[in-house]
Amino acid sequence: MYDGIVQELIDEFGRLPGIGPKSAQRIAFHILQTPSFDVKRLAELLTEVRERVRFCEICGNVAEQERCAICRDPRRNAALICVVEDAKDVAAIERTREFRGLYHVLGGAISPIAGVGPDDLRIAQLMTRLADGTVQEVILATNPNLEGEATASYLSRLLTSMQITVSRLASGLPVGGDLEYADEVTLGRAFEGRRVL
Amino acid sequence: MYDGIVQELIDEFGRLPGIGPKSAQRIAFHILQTPSFDVKRLAELLTEVRERVRFCEICGNVAEQERCAICRDPRRNAALICVVEDAKDVAAIERTREFRGLYHVLGGAISPIAGVGPDDLRIAQLMTRLADGTVQEVILATNPNLEGEATASYLSRLLTSMQITVSRLASGLPVGGDLEYADEVTLGRAFEGRRVL
Repeated sequence: MYDGIVQELIDEFGRLPGIGPKSAQRIAFHILQTPSFDVKRLAELLTEVRERVRFCEICGNVAEQERCAICRDPRRNAALICVVEDAKDVAAIERTREFRGLYHVLGGAISPIAGVGPDDLRIAQLMTRLADGTVQEVILATNPNLEGEATASYLSRLLTSMQITVSRLASGLPVGGDLEYADEVTLGRAFEGRRVL
Repeated sequence: MYDGIVQELIDEFGRLPGIGPKSAQRIAFHILQTPSFDVKRLAELLTEVRERVRFCEICGNVAEQERCAICRDPRRNAALICVVEDAKDVAAIERTREFRGLYHVLGGAISPIAGVGPDDLRIAQLMTRLADGTVQEVILATNPNLEGEATASYLSRLLTSMQITVSRLASGLPVGGDLEYADEVTLGRAFEGRRVL
């Protein structure tokens, strides 16, 4: 279709998540019309990110050093660990500015269909972190879907024998949402979790 | 939110057309988990495409040499020129395998709102190509929207004085579409352009 190398670039972009063939083509043509300098910067950034960024040896979050910025911060409450599936979830929670504890990134959720079992997740590392008795509460913040719920209940069973409070993020109506448009399961959860005023 | 360089990469991806902040984040995390080798390849391809690919000096299509693969092909019919807005349109028409002539890429369409006039398009170059009398038909294949129609009617007026057939791609119902869902303008065009069987 296109002279070889342009098609190659389109194919490479098409391999990125969430980019279909049409978007890939649009991006490739955008690159052709972008100043050389900017393209070079993107290219260098790609290589640099891949070389410099790794995952925190404690919590599994993205980091430029051995430990991530959150694990290095002495002002964070080390008695509180929030367990999430993915490093993207850490960023989402940080945006709320509600949580001042530490994180633990599992790297996914238990899913028999996708062939992901407890051993494929960073659960052993979590148990090691909990062993010295510093942590008083573990907040299970896995996604409120089938896999996330399965992972949360697996972890909560695993933690019952320890002297640690285990909690789960509340399910209910999204703020700013419309009751009318809530699905039954969410609405049911909102009733279950109702609070006396 | 993220350690500096990851956020920088997210921002860079977010600047590409059709990629919102969520997609940009997803792509950046995908890059972090992609083998170094593949990321390096994408980075090199980006720089290489930007350095090697240019626009054909005759038709304005993407090319790796001074002239594009289509203009260099002696089997193409040089008496027939298809005028399109964008190099992406060349690829779309090539996919049909219906057209064996040459192309002329305008680089956009006339749009008073966007401040694009005839002088901003490769119209002078088109007139130069038509001057030697080789071309017998010009097919106006600009988009069937306001800007594309304006550009087509501007060009057709410009070409009336020359001994050249000027044609426009047919408008009508899309093949495989449903009459019920066609908008009025398209359906009206389909009536206007009806053919005796």
